[in-house]
This record gives sequence, C-alpha cells and structure tokens, in this order.
Amino acid sequence: MAARNRQWVLAERPVDRAVRSSDFRMVETPVPEPKPGEFVTRVIYSSLAPVMRFYMLDGAAGEKPLEMGEVMRGRAVGQIVASRHPAFKEGEIVQGKMGWQEYAVSDGSPYWMMYKVHQRIVPVSTALGVLGMTGFTAYFGLFDIGKPKTCEMVLVSGAAGGVGSSVGQVAKIAGCSVVGIAGGPDKCALLTSKLGYDAAIDYKADDVTAALDRLCPKGIDVFFDNVGGPILDAALSRINKYARVVSCGGISQYIAGTKDPYPLKNAYLIGRLNALLQGFFIYDFEARFAEAEQAMAGWIKDGRLTYQEDILDGFERMPEALIRLYQGANRGKQLVRVSADPF
Amino acid sequence: MAARNRQWVLAERPVDRAVRSSDFRMVETPVPEPKPGEFVTRVIYSSLAPVMRFYMLDGAAGEKPLEMGEVMRGRAVGQIVASRHPAFKEGEIVQGKMGWQEYAVSDGSPYWMMYKVHQRIVPVSTALGVLGMTGFTAYFGLFDIGKPKTCEMVLVSGAAGGVGSSVGQVAKIAGCSVVGIAGGPDKCALLTSKLGYDAAIDYKADDVTAALDRLCPKGIDVFFDNVGGPILDAALSRINKYARVVSCGGISQYIAGTKDPYPLKNAYLIGRLNALLQGFFIYDFEARFAEAEQAMAGWIKDGRLTYQEDILDGFERMPEALIRLYQGANRGKQLVRVSADPF
Repeated sequence: MAARNRQWVLAERPVDRAVRSSDFRMVETPVPEPKPGEFVTRVIYSSLAPVMRFYMLDGAAGEKPLEMGEVMRGRAVGQIVASRHPAFKEGEIVQGKMGWQEYAVSDGSPYWMMYKVHQRIVPVSTALGVLGMTGFTAYFGLFDIGKPKTCEMVLVSGAAGGVGSSVGQVAKIAGCSVVGIAGGPDKCALLTSKLGYDAAIDYKADDVTAALDRLCPKGIDVFFDNVGGPILDAALSRINKYARVVSCGGISQYIAGTKDPYPLKNAYLIGRLNALLQGFFIYDFEARFAEAEQAMAGWIKDGRLTYQEDILDGFERMPEALIRLYQGANRGKQLVRVSADPF
Repeated sequence: MAARNRQWVLAERPVDRAVRSSDFRMVETPVPEPKPGEFVTRVIYSSLAPVMRFYMLDGAAGEKPLEMGEVMRGRAVGQIVASRHPAFKEGEIVQGKMGWQEYAVSDGSPYWMMYKVHQRIVPVSTALGVLGMTGFTAYFGLFDIGKPKTCEMVLVSGAAGGVGSSVGQVAKIAGCSVVGIAGGPDKCALLTSKLGYDAAIDYKADDVTAALDRLCPKGIDVFFDNVGGPILDAALSRINKYARVVSCGGISQYIAGTKDPYPLKNAYLIGRLNALLQGFFIYDFEARFAEAEQAMAGWIKDGRLTYQEDILDGFERMPEALIRLYQGANRGKQLVRVSADPF
C-alpha cells in the first residue's frame, strides 16, 4: 500500500452555526497498517448528516466536540483491505464510523459501530441509508415496537424524512393504511406519489387534529413519531386502545436542547388506553440487522421499497456535500463516492 | 333452595355526590335456579370500592349508570351452589361481578369477569384484594411491564393504596430497592414500617424532585405510577435509560374527568432515553391469574407479603360499609362477610 490516506480535519469552528469550506483542511498521512486485532478499510461511500455541525461545535448524542485538527467524524461504507482481526476478513464490506478519510483503521470494538453488509442485490451505498441505520430504525421501530397488524391505521410524522419515507412504504407492505405528516405541499405530494402513503397531512397548512379526524376516522393504531412536540400531542389525542407509539424523535429534541420541552397534554391517554409509548436504541437490534437488510433488499429489488440518494463524486467534495445538505440542495440521502464501487 | 335472595337495589341517586343509606333499598326475591349454561353462586364476601358512587350517578369505566331499582353492581367472592354450566362446578369458588345480593346467577360470559379461586392457603376473602384484581394489577404491572431486575430502583406512587402496597412488597421480594410516594406522615410511616419500602416520600410535605435526588441518586429504573399528573412528571424527570414506567393511574384520571389533563413536560424523555411508558388491562393477563395467585399466596404464607382487610359482618351492612369507605374510616380493603366462609 504505497498510497496516501487523504483526510479532512477540522480547521475552524463554524461561526454563527453556519458551516463553511474553510472550516476544513485536507491532510495526507500514510495508509495505516493494521496492528494485531485491527483491520483497515478503504472507504467507498461516505455519508453526510445534519448532526455533523454539532460535532464541529458542541458535540452531540453523548460524543464530545471534535478537537481542532481532528479527522471529521462520520459514517462510511468500505471494503476491508487488510486485517489482523479474526472476525473481519479482507474483502468484506462494512459500515461504521470511519470518518472523513480514504482509509480507516479500527479494532471493531463497539465504539466503531461496525457491522457487515451482507447483501449484494442493490448498491452497497444503501448501507448508509435505506439498508443502514436509517432503514433499520424504520424496520425495527415499526415491527418490533409498533407491531402493526394488517388493516391497522399507521400514522407517521416526519414522513418525508429518511426514516419516515421508509416507514410508510414498509407499513404498506405490512398491509396497513398509512397516513403521513410532513411540512409543505411538495413533501406531501411526494408522500402520496412516490412513498406509498395513502394520504398526507401538511402540518404547516392543515389543522392536524381535524385532518386526523378526517383521514383516520377509526383512530390511530400505530404512531411512528419522528418529531415530538405538538404533533405528537395531536396524534396522542386520537390513539386507539392498545395503540403503540414509537418515539423516534428524541435525538432532534436533544439537539434542539435550548428550548423548554413541549408539555404533552395527552400523554396520560397512554395509560388510560392500555397503550404504549417507547423509545429505542437501534444498536440494541444489532444481532438482527442482517434480517432487516435481507428483507428490505428484497423489497427494493421487487420495486416495493424505493429510496433516493444524492451522490457527489470525489473525496475532495466532502465539505461541499455537507454545505449542500445544510442548504437543502440535496435530493435524498447525501453521499460522496470516495472510491470506485467494486460491485 | 327454599331460601330467599336478599338484594340491595338503587332507591335514590346520591345528592351532591354523597352516598346515603337511604339511596339503597333491600328487596327479597327467590334464589335463582340456573338455566342451561348458567350457574348460581352463594356470596361469601362482597367488596366495596370507591368507584361504586359513579355507578349510582354517571356510570364509570365504560359501564352505564344503574337504573333505579336495579341491583347494586359490585364484585364478590362466592361458592357455586348449583350449576348447569360445563366449566363451572358446584363447590368451586369464583370471584366476579355478582352484585349486592346473597345469590347471583351467571352464564360465565366475559361480562361477569368470573375467575376461579384456586388457592386454599389463605382466606378466600383475599380474592377481592391482594389475591384479586388489586394484587394481580401489582403483580403483572410490575413483572410484565416494569420487568424489574435485582438491585434496580423501583419507585411507586400511590404507594399506600391497594395496588401500591402490594407493588412495594413484591418489588422487595424481587430484590429491588423500593421508594414509595404517599400523602401524609401516617401513610409514609406505614410504607417503611409495614409495607417493606426502603424509604418514603410525602408528596404533601416534600419537594418530590429533591427527594428523588436524595433517595434515588442513581435514578429510577422502574416507576409504577398509580396517580399520574405532577408526580408522574417529577418521576419522569429522573428516569434512567431503558426505564419502564407502568401507567396504572388512568382510571382515577378518567373518573376525575372534569379537570384538564396535566401537561407532562418530561414525557419526551421516554423516547430520548429508550424508555417505555405503558398502560394495561388486567384481564389481558387472565390466563395467568392462577400463576399470580399461587406465587402471592405463597408469599403471604411465608410472611413476606402482608395485606389488610376491614370486614363487617352481615349483608344488611352493605350500605354502611360503603359509606364507611367514603368517610375514610376503613383500615385496609373494605369487605362485608355475607355468608359463612366455608374454609
């Protein structure tokens, strides 16, 4: 391995919370050699996510802010090119916290959140979205907490987002009626035209409670909530007996941080209606990621589950891709192709 | 059966929500004969409950208010004295909605909520309290929803009440640390002296949140909530990751009815902390009532689970017993012994 490992490191902290190209600096280091118990991956696709701004500023979700000069934190999918780790073999594809660099070294311990990509049915870029944590969150949140039964009414908030756009389609595959809540006519049109939703509620324009009465006249059996706050409260007011409310909006509220939590008037209905409100940590389902990957890859192949990716080519474009995300210019999951996809 | 069946029927509706002796009238009818598919029980113990006032006024928990002249609704434990029902045999002991009368006829359909009392270790009066729905609510709410692990911190609100007084003892048997919340120094003294609680919080005198910080410095793993409202909100603010909140306070809030529900500022933490908030309907555990009865009867026999009953003698004292309950004069579960206990 004579190649160099290019890395993007933090050069400056964003000013007024706006990320600029000049906040990053590219450096070159030798490609790492694995020590005993380690393996090295070559990054194929690197993922951009809104949370990254917080890594640069204050930290997020239990992680410290980056030091100046530290390699930018981020997830990627890569191929193992060298290994001295018994459980990770050369040639295998893994997804994990590889950071903004061309080569990453890891010992596979939980910090790295490495998991293997088994499917070869659809591009491995999906391991950063619909066949990665985003899709798995939809799959396990819906099936293991929401437990939808055929013909039940499933409501989804943040329905046009990464998780929500999969939840709706998967709930349709499970034979449910599915209503989505999103902001604005474009997103709402997307819900019903592309994402399998039976109906959409535009929370910016509609009275959500009145819309629920119209679109879910028999009440809500499963609510997959990606946002919390007043939309959660409105949905809680319309849940059925034994309803399951999947709380997937915690992280955004955590990041928002500064404002007081919205007081929920209708959370008491959970108890009264023998219902359930539950949060979850997606890595608690790690032993079953392969199950979700296999099921969802099959649905993608069959055309029953669609997803959208927005891929820029070239490692040098990482900062551009992140800024693009904050500008809302991306259409679907924002990725950068760092090296050639071998499949 | 030459005997007559004495019954208490509704004579007047309570005025200003206060129940009076004159609201009831005793009538005599022939002891019923079972038709095919029916059985007749002789009542041994009859249970008095705060909810009865609502039966007399507006109905409660999905049941209509009583008609004038209708037999008062209520639960009792009785022995089957005649049966033409294949599943209910003469001599068996059952608990169910027998009403305020000496003999009840039933077809055993779900409306009657009849279940068989199997244990003969402790008096069958317990089937109306600690070995009945009250105790089963504690048992299944704690074990099946709360899922306490050894050395975890279990918090209980309404801790001196029927359900709460069993929850604390059962949680201690399960090897947990147990803190109870109740109102007033007498109840709090009861919690720690008789009911096995490690510590008590008097919500009328203490700052609940500050007391939680002092008594549960490592946070709350299981919260068994019998009250809802501000105490629930305070407890939610101190739950741990993966905490389980058992919502058992729904019925009281339902009956309260008139006032606006208390807005919960901290319910969002359920999602953020991968926690769970769940209500339940005790009859969903009906297939396992015998399991709970057997376990708890054993603990009573071993002296590990105590309970308190306040038994008046004589069917004619039913109205007196109910009024006594509303006056707060009872010490423990209020019962009337309607006929001699055969055991």
